[in-house]
Amino acid sequence: MPDAPIAALPPTVAWHGDLDGHLQLLDQTSLPHDCAVLRLDTAAAVADAIRRLAVRGAPAIGVAAAYGLVLGVRAAAPPPGGFLAAVRAAAAALAAARPTAINLQWALDRCVAAAQAEPTLERLLAEARAIHEEDVAACRRIGEHGHHLVPPDGTVLTHCNTGRLATTGDGTALAVLFAAWRAGVRFRVLVGETRPLLQGARLTALELAAAGIPVQVACDGAVAGLVARGDVQLALVGADRVAQNGDFANKVGTYPIALACAAHSVPFFVAAPRSSFDPCLADGAAIPIEERDANEVLELGGRRLAVAGVAARNPAFDLTPGRLVRGFVTDRGLLLPPFPAAIKALCGSGR
Amino acid sequence: MPDAPIAALPPTVAWHGDLDGHLQLLDQTSLPHDCAVLRLDTAAAVADAIRRLAVRGAPAIGVAAAYGLVLGVRAAAPPPGGFLAAVRAAAAALAAARPTAINLQWALDRCVAAAQAEPTLERLLAEARAIHEEDVAACRRIGEHGHHLVPPDGTVLTHCNTGRLATTGDGTALAVLFAAWRAGVRFRVLVGETRPLLQGARLTALELAAAGIPVQVACDGAVAGLVARGDVQLALVGADRVAQNGDFANKVGTYPIALACAAHSVPFFVAAPRSSFDPCLADGAAIPIEERDANEVLELGGRRLAVAGVAARNPAFDLTPGRLVRGFVTDRGLLLPPFPAAIKALCGSGR
Repeated sequence: MPDAPIAALPPTVAWHGDLDGHLQLLDQTSLPHDCAVLRLDTAAAVADAIRRLAVRGAPAIGVAAAYGLVLGVRAAAPPPGGFLAAVRAAAAALAAARPTAINLQWALDRCVAAAQAEPTLERLLAEARAIHEEDVAACRRIGEHGHHLVPPDGTVLTHCNTGRLATTGDGTALAVLFAAWRAGVRFRVLVGETRPLLQGARLTALELAAAGIPVQVACDGAVAGLVARGDVQLALVGADRVAQNGDFANKVGTYPIALACAAHSVPFFVAAPRSSFDPCLADGAAIPIEERDANEVLELGGRRLAVAGVAARNPAFDLTPGRLVRGFVTDRGLLLPPFPAAIKALCGSGR
Repeated sequence: MPDAPIAALPPTVAWHGDLDGHLQLLDQTSLPHDCAVLRLDTAAAVADAIRRLAVRGAPAIGVAAAYGLVLGVRAAAPPPGGFLAAVRAAAAALAAARPTAINLQWALDRCVAAAQAEPTLERLLAEARAIHEEDVAACRRIGEHGHHLVPPDGTVLTHCNTGRLATTGDGTALAVLFAAWRAGVRFRVLVGETRPLLQGARLTALELAAAGIPVQVACDGAVAGLVARGDVQLALVGADRVAQNGDFANKVGTYPIALACAAHSVPFFVAAPRSSFDPCLADGAAIPIEERDANEVLELGGRRLAVAGVAARNPAFDLTPGRLVRGFVTDRGLLLPPFPAAIKALCGSGR
């Protein structure tokens, strides 16, 4: 089913049932060729799905983890008064699944705070659902705040996947593009294939093609040269964690795009919901960068690319300095660093 | 045979026999997993091998084309006095195989000039053999002139393949590394995998591992972030064509490496023989950039990466401004642009 419209795909993240329900995830590792749906009943299974990128995208893993916390606490047999301890233990296990995107920690912190206010499973599930609904709304508002940036008849460069598969709504950077397209603006998209796991070629191209938006894939190394040639009018990417000065972590390959855009005066914007902003980090230096398995680089389709004995570096993210960013399209409007007191004040306040 | 030492591989380019001989090429499309040798008897077969990258690397395709010219002229039945016309026709057909690397045109121009001086097949073959021998010597001298640049205990970043598989000698950038290693300097190499055709992961890793030099592969998009983190002490790449001001074309992914090195004060050098310098171009703007088949990007191991209907851009090279280059390691020593009169004077003089 490589050509199935995205509308026909199951939702990225869905909770089925009530307190006795389960989590359903669209397995993104097999897209676009196969469409498998995972039914998860344990927090360990959710953490595993996050780790192996069956669900990925900073906002989507935040929502998935919030539901995973319900599963984890439900399975625990807490001693009287131990409900909060069970919540904290399950939250810590889920948070460890991926270190870079702040949304995961943000969502779990919110759920822990909710459980502190009312230590019941009902409250935990209600908080997960609230996070889910807010993510859908944040995506819509990002689209509303950003769609005027898209240059008519221009080419927009993006990277990795920041759409319906990375969130539970329309996306972040892609939400801007979907909103512009719905508003009648016509443009083309150039997306880096996003090695090693090819989220650009597999997922973003799927989403854009399904929406009827013309899309071209390029190798990640080729993108800077295309920017230099004047083939790109706007670059728009997502973020996994944004520090107070605008430094941000995003999928490897983002930083060289920002460097090329700066060298050739192409506007470079970031689209991200408030949950991707880390109110506690002054700059990006302390953002933990996940280093993943070397085999993601060295094997492709089960086939080894290099001879035995060759090693690999596989950082999942790179860090782009805030000074290279023209602006941040958020659910609160277009922001420039340093970020408003409203975000800073969240630090240490349970966010 | 993924683990066969490089020394056990057949030569990259070899002429077998005399005037009635044939050209032998190591088919690089199937390395490192399979080792196939091609026996070529026609100029058309040589042009096809160059086009589909069975032989690649600017110096190696120059040598292969020179031998291909012998095959093309031998097969032609020139009318009396038509020898030179046959040489020119065969040279034009071979030159059209790949447009970016100047070495191809340079080698063919030399052969045409030799045939003008002495219009015999013997002279053509002698010229091809001279170009071949000079390439081996140029590689050795590049190594001699550059090996002192390699930082002891440092990490050297390179890109694509510039070794024994890209030349008929020790290579260009890799010749520097082999020479440093032989001189007792110990270091590590980080190589971008070089999508779409993975010459970094497939070929450079093979050559370095076989020489016992520690090598790590990274996705092309990840390299800039590793430079930013301080993980690279020297970048050293090859070139397919260098203009008089130092602008140069090289495999896509080179320009973002240069940008990252400039941003983080990491020395960035180019290694190339004189045959890669275009004496007729003041700057890089006029270097033709080959755009290859979209399927090189969209398919991998026979499997389609993106859904149907998705297009791709596939420029094979990008252009790096000369101002980002700390120096050019050549067979004539370490040069800085603008290049010496000795190279400039070659323009229009049959090179």
